[in-house]
Amino acid sequence: MASIDLNSDLGESFGAWRLGDDDAMLDLVSSANIACGFHAGDPTTLLRTCRAAGERTVRIGAQVGYRDLAGFGRRFLDVAPADLTADVIYQIGALDGLAQTVDSAVAYLKPHGALYNAIVHHREQARAVVAAVLAYDPTLPVLGLPGSVFLVEAEAAGLRTVAEAFADRAYTATGELVPRTEPGAVLTDPAHVADRVLRMVDRGEIVAADGTVLPVAAESVCVHGDSPSAVAMADAVRTRLVASGIGVEPFV
Amino acid sequence: MASIDLNSDLGESFGAWRLGDDDAMLDLVSSANIACGFHAGDPTTLLRTCRAAGERTVRIGAQVGYRDLAGFGRRFLDVAPADLTADVIYQIGALDGLAQTVDSAVAYLKPHGALYNAIVHHREQARAVVAAVLAYDPTLPVLGLPGSVFLVEAEAAGLRTVAEAFADRAYTATGELVPRTEPGAVLTDPAHVADRVLRMVDRGEIVAADGTVLPVAAESVCVHGDSPSAVAMADAVRTRLVASGIGVEPFV
Amino acid sequence: MASIDLNSDLGESFGAWRLGDDDAMLDLVSSANIACGFHAGDPTTLLRTCRAAGERTVRIGAQVGYRDLAGFGRRFLDVAPADLTADVIYQIGALDGLAQTVDSAVAYLKPHGALYNAIVHHREQARAVVAAVLAYDPTLPVLGLPGSVFLVEAEAAGLRTVAEAFADRAYTATGELVPRTEPGAVLTDPAHVADRVLRMVDRGEIVAADGTVLPVAAESVCVHGDSPSAVAMADAVRTRLVASGIGVEPFV
Amino acid sequence: MASIDLNSDLGESFGAWRLGDDDAMLDLVSSANIACGFHAGDPTTLLRTCRAAGERTVRIGAQVGYRDLAGFGRRFLDVAPADLTADVIYQIGALDGLAQTVDSAVAYLKPHGALYNAIVHHREQARAVVAAVLAYDPTLPVLGLPGSVFLVEAEAAGLRTVAEAFADRAYTATGELVPRTEPGAVLTDPAHVADRVLRMVDRGEIVAADGTVLPVAAESVCVHGDSPSAVAMADAVRTRLVASGIGVEPFV
Repeated sequence: MASIDLNSDLGESFGAWRLGDDDAMLDLVSSANIACGFHAGDPTTLLRTCRAAGERTVRIGAQVGYRDLAGFGRRFLDVAPADLTADVIYQIGALDGLAQTVDSAVAYLKPHGALYNAIVHHREQARAVVAAVLAYDPTLPVLGLPGSVFLVEAEAAGLRTVAEAFADRAYTATGELVPRTEPGAVLTDPAHVADRVLRMVDRGEIVAADGTVLPVAAESVCVHGDSPSAVAMADAVRTRLVASGIGVEPFV
Repeated sequence: MASIDLNSDLGESFGAWRLGDDDAMLDLVSSANIACGFHAGDPTTLLRTCRAAGERTVRIGAQVGYRDLAGFGRRFLDVAPADLTADVIYQIGALDGLAQTVDSAVAYLKPHGALYNAIVHHREQARAVVAAVLAYDPTLPVLGLPGSVFLVEAEAAGLRTVAEAFADRAYTATGELVPRTEPGAVLTDPAHVADRVLRMVDRGEIVAADGTVLPVAAESVCVHGDSPSAVAMADAVRTRLVASGIGVEPFV
Repeated sequence: MASIDLNSDLGESFGAWRLGDDDAMLDLVSSANIACGFHAGDPTTLLRTCRAAGERTVRIGAQVGYRDLAGFGRRFLDVAPADLTADVIYQIGALDGLAQTVDSAVAYLKPHGALYNAIVHHREQARAVVAAVLAYDPTLPVLGLPGSVFLVEAEAAGLRTVAEAFADRAYTATGELVPRTEPGAVLTDPAHVADRVLRMVDRGEIVAADGTVLPVAAESVCVHGDSPSAVAMADAVRTRLVASGIGVEPFV
Repeated sequence: MASIDLNSDLGESFGAWRLGDDDAMLDLVSSANIACGFHAGDPTTLLRTCRAAGERTVRIGAQVGYRDLAGFGRRFLDVAPADLTADVIYQIGALDGLAQTVDSAVAYLKPHGALYNAIVHHREQARAVVAAVLAYDPTLPVLGLPGSVFLVEAEAAGLRTVAEAFADRAYTATGELVPRTEPGAVLTDPAHVADRVLRMVDRGEIVAADGTVLPVAAESVCVHGDSPSAVAMADAVRTRLVASGIGVEPFV
């Protein structure tokens, strides 16, 4: 049976501030990108999320980001490569330590927010993240945008790379994401999003904003966890996939 | 040959701010209590300090503290036990992750500053720290004050406990530390401090501020790393010990 | 016509994390205790909240707290008095600066969370907060618990003190708040809470958890802003007061 | 008598971490760019520095920066303009609040580190800083690099602009600063630096790294406060100026 991985950003509460419905999302996805404390995620939240993921055999990924709580890691920060490498190792180690106490472990890495976007093009920072993974555990897979400098550098360094597609984001005709600042960049209709994901997985295609049909070869599909309709959308995606005979399983 | 462990607080710089002379201290001590980022220690500093310790086969300890950079972890914080446990696991994991990338590992835990002082008496926080170590790695030794609630709880939980004495702190007749706010609480003369440490190790005695001779059974002696005369003092202590045929070696 | 001041904690979002419905609450209260960035409140949120308060002629208070974002200022922090004084001045100045840019100003001070609770009894910290207000602007009124060391010290120093009662908190027979950890400490039924507030204002009485009728002389009543039913409760309180011919107006 | 303003970055300690010798520098300069807590400067340090400046009638400037303690404000942060405006107002207000308690006040603004460098070219962020000053106090002068977008925008908005030159930095033939990463970018010989400053002030000239003589019209000269030789250099500059009949006075 065909299957696909669904990943979502979780563990992004901080102290008194709650974000998203982690428990509901963990019932729907196969991989949890759990924050590591630099852009979001206090240790108690992270531990609880690791435990909840482990109970459902959802895989744990380290969602590393810039040290910027006030900006939620969504603002580019011009960190020197050596500092970024140390920051990333620190974050992976912290989350892995928490995961180990609930008999789980960090199983992959996915950069967050502005770091994710920066290393689509920023070679020095991309290499710094790759260097962190190599140093911490060279068998750790990394998730990223197909064609990004990050995945190119990761592959060149011998890391296992996992290309992902976005369930609820519009694409340009050249296969990039339509910037969030443009109208229509974020899709919100669960049925429409479910259709798109099925077509991505089933036929390897995605329809760009201008109607162009693009080939897509993603091993994982990201469903966002922090929007009001996040759970409804992930539920629709999962239901459509399963009804079409496609399992929701972690990437191999 | 008799031997004793010398430990010191290191890795306590943060970003542009430098504190102490870590390289010089690492040439003198056998155990490095390295900060973990909550009271001090940016990841780059921690990584550098772990590497420098590893190169000298100095043992690495996780010096965990309250989340309080502005207070350098020296102010009591009334953290709930479950949060403290998660905070401590997070810190150990982060430092251990960094240490592993330089082929080393966290080999023990020593609480820092106000947390160290609080858990001499504060049973709930003491248990929270013990719970963190049990969850992370129950073989990890913990350093603390002889007779503290922390060491009592740790021992009851089956952890390896290591009692420490302080090279440069005055003691009361009942074996407690003279508070820093009182005159004479901190000793500054290297020769005098070296004499005291030799007597602690050689004869198992310490002379209290009022002249009382106290028995002391410490497996490790703490020499502070952040005072202006820190290096001179540690050097004097080590030289005196070695000249008396006592090796400076990690506790077993 | 009789009137009473209603105050509420607002401006407590931080970056991507939202807390409470500030706009709805500002339509109901007469005084806004706006966070100052140490326990909550990024500058953009604070500026927006100051502007929204000013548009409704709601008075702005500086809700100062411990520097503890992760704990939302709800954990006691053993800050040295001189540092606490500087921390409080910094926070008042920052909020006042923002308020001035929207033609408003900080008009009173109310300590937040663990600081509020600490200075009911902690004389050194109480005096440190009083010293900050004296230094910044000795005409600034301070809100606090009747009988607290804070209000006693503030009054002794010549500050204008404003005693407040809590709309949705149970009281003990001696007039203290029932700790949040005990059942029934927080009241959640809007109609019941509205009845209590009316009785506080109209007859100067509050019924303790054990049925004792206590005298209460509050110039302001606190309605919490961050619970799910906060708006409904504040609405019920205001409606009941107005229906009884009592205006909701800032304290004089 | 001719005179020139000397400015220096001060108040940049944080908690247990000390940086620079503020008292010594305050005896030498006429304007103190005091940190505001976002890149450096805890409130106790800021209050002490404001007091020490006031005692010497040294003028106080708000040295505003990015919210980045770990990076000391030296890393570009892609803050949205509206957030940057609020961040800057918050910082000015906080420092001004502290200054007022020691009978002083913020008398000008100078951006710090990466923000200073960014707004040489980054129009949106430059405008955001200008908007903050306009909103807080449109009579507040701003210090910046001659020809920078920041000063151009500030002047267009009607602010008083003050062009500054750097005592200890090499210039390119086109009048820009040689990047710190290049050899010879930072000058360290006090006598040489003193000569340069005298020539800047006396003859309005600066000799670029390649020997080109550039015209310079600076109303203030920046002497750095955080290098080991900072005090010696500032002392040499001041002594040379005074010996040449040029007073060290705040800009008018």
